[in-house]
Amino acid sequence: MDAVSRIERALSAALSHAGKAGGPPRLGKAMEHAVFPRGARVRPRLCLAVAAACGEDDPAAADAAAAAIELLHCASLVHDDLPCFDNADVRRGRPSVHRAFGEPLAVLAGDALIVLAFQTIARGAGAAPRRLGPLLEVVGAAVGAPAGIAAGQAWECEPPETVDLGHYQRSKTGILFAAAAMAGAVSAGAEGGPWRLLGERLGEAYQVADDIRDAAAEPEEMGKPAGRDVALGRPSAATSYGVSGAVTRLEALAAEAMAAVPPCRGAAELRGLIRSEAKRLMPASLAARAVAAA
Amino acid sequence: MDAVSRIERALSAALSHAGKAGGPPRLGKAMEHAVFPRGARVRPRLCLAVAAACGEDDPAAADAAAAAIELLHCASLVHDDLPCFDNADVRRGRPSVHRAFGEPLAVLAGDALIVLAFQTIARGAGAAPRRLGPLLEVVGAAVGAPAGIAAGQAWECEPPETVDLGHYQRSKTGILFAAAAMAGAVSAGAEGGPWRLLGERLGEAYQVADDIRDAAAEPEEMGKPAGRDVALGRPSAATSYGVSGAVTRLEALAAEAMAAVPPCRGAAELRGLIRSEAKRLMPASLAARAVAAA
Repeated sequence: MDAVSRIERALSAALSHAGKAGGPPRLGKAMEHAVFPRGARVRPRLCLAVAAACGEDDPAAADAAAAAIELLHCASLVHDDLPCFDNADVRRGRPSVHRAFGEPLAVLAGDALIVLAFQTIARGAGAAPRRLGPLLEVVGAAVGAPAGIAAGQAWECEPPETVDLGHYQRSKTGILFAAAAMAGAVSAGAEGGPWRLLGERLGEAYQVADDIRDAAAEPEEMGKPAGRDVALGRPSAATSYGVSGAVTRLEALAAEAMAAVPPCRGAAELRGLIRSEAKRLMPASLAARAVAAA
Repeated sequence: MDAVSRIERALSAALSHAGKAGGPPRLGKAMEHAVFPRGARVRPRLCLAVAAACGEDDPAAADAAAAAIELLHCASLVHDDLPCFDNADVRRGRPSVHRAFGEPLAVLAGDALIVLAFQTIARGAGAAPRRLGPLLEVVGAAVGAPAGIAAGQAWECEPPETVDLGHYQRSKTGILFAAAAMAGAVSAGAEGGPWRLLGERLGEAYQVADDIRDAAAEPEEMGKPAGRDVALGRPSAATSYGVSGAVTRLEALAAEAMAAVPPCRGAAELRGLIRSEAKRLMPASLAARAVAAA
């Protein structure tokens, strides 16, 4: 079974547990709306790729880690879209959860997805209890305080002059990529630490790419409105470095990520994944402009 | 060390980890505001009392379970107070988190508290990895979907005619009490199941008491505005049964909770705790009216 099929199956299994009969039906539907249809699933694919590179010996644990990472990513998007943050009407080309189900269910669906992520790890890694604690540690650190994605979002509530852009981006996006890579390793019984740098670089690259797309892409390429970072006065690589400076930074980060793959069986496949992701993340309109300028 | 001191110490340790240097300072402060100064801490006290009754042999695991339950309770209050739910300005006699720190930090503080609860369990039960999975299972089921407190809150987003009051109350409050009792047992290496009924009855009693206080207490007794269930059209034992019917129901539930204590060393102490809680939960103004009427 290919990686994406494994991820979709693990996510469906987790959500079917959460949406069981007897619960409030609209909450289950709001959670599903947040997770399906799928986005790029780049974080869980990274998790499974690292698990495979480390000689995966417990596919249930790897699937659980990958699904948990994606559930947490989806939860963060649901809360990030709320009126008190981005007030985004559209996500992945469809109404955001609060637009489709109302603000209360969007708050609760996000909460329940966070819980579901930890339940999924507990169930999936149950056969290897000694991996469970380290997995929870890696994943928990990536989403809470002081340095997880909730903290990254919270930097937007600090006085702008006190916010370090690198710190903010590492917390907001990089850390969940780092956790995806480390959790993949831990799920396979390997050390997580050596995989942190790869994830961090890839995560920072992804955030820079997102900033570029926000500043420079056509709305129909994104599935959500463009230009919101500037409109909301948020820190952005594209406003800090300019679009072409940000493109240079993205290319450097992708190269650093490829260089950070530790020696392992699956190194070549991993580098290939990084290369294709970096290409995919560049907006087509920018790529076209680059071709026209050449 | 008495139970409340243990709980406060465990909560302080958890929050000091989350508020570590390098994180966004206001998020750490918002999380502290949500947890301190303390409320009644009735759920973690129940957890520790059950652990003791089961012959507690791993105080770190029991402390972690108790702290996690309280962190989740505090998280639910922060989100429950948000403008899109109760829009409550006051909690425990002080500004609610969103009034003190703004709505974005209230959403994020709640999220980070949920994560911190699971991190706290992972750390505290690390020395007993075989208890870790069952502890996570018990606690996770009590807060997520389909039947945890997020689900309980989500019932308020379903058409009122489809909502069963007992189901709603069990999810909204009872289940976290059940989890507190069961987690106490599991942290001590005992089976959680036999302790569920005790927690459920106590939790339902607590919700009925809250409904009575909302309908009948003087505002200064509550530390928050009264009459909100009626104002918000929410299901309430006091509106369903009338205040005196709800008082009768509360007394019956407290008696059922006492009868549900499984045979164990600490049964007498547990029953004493239940008796004193039931007394404490009755608003003083109602108790005075009952005396005047006698």
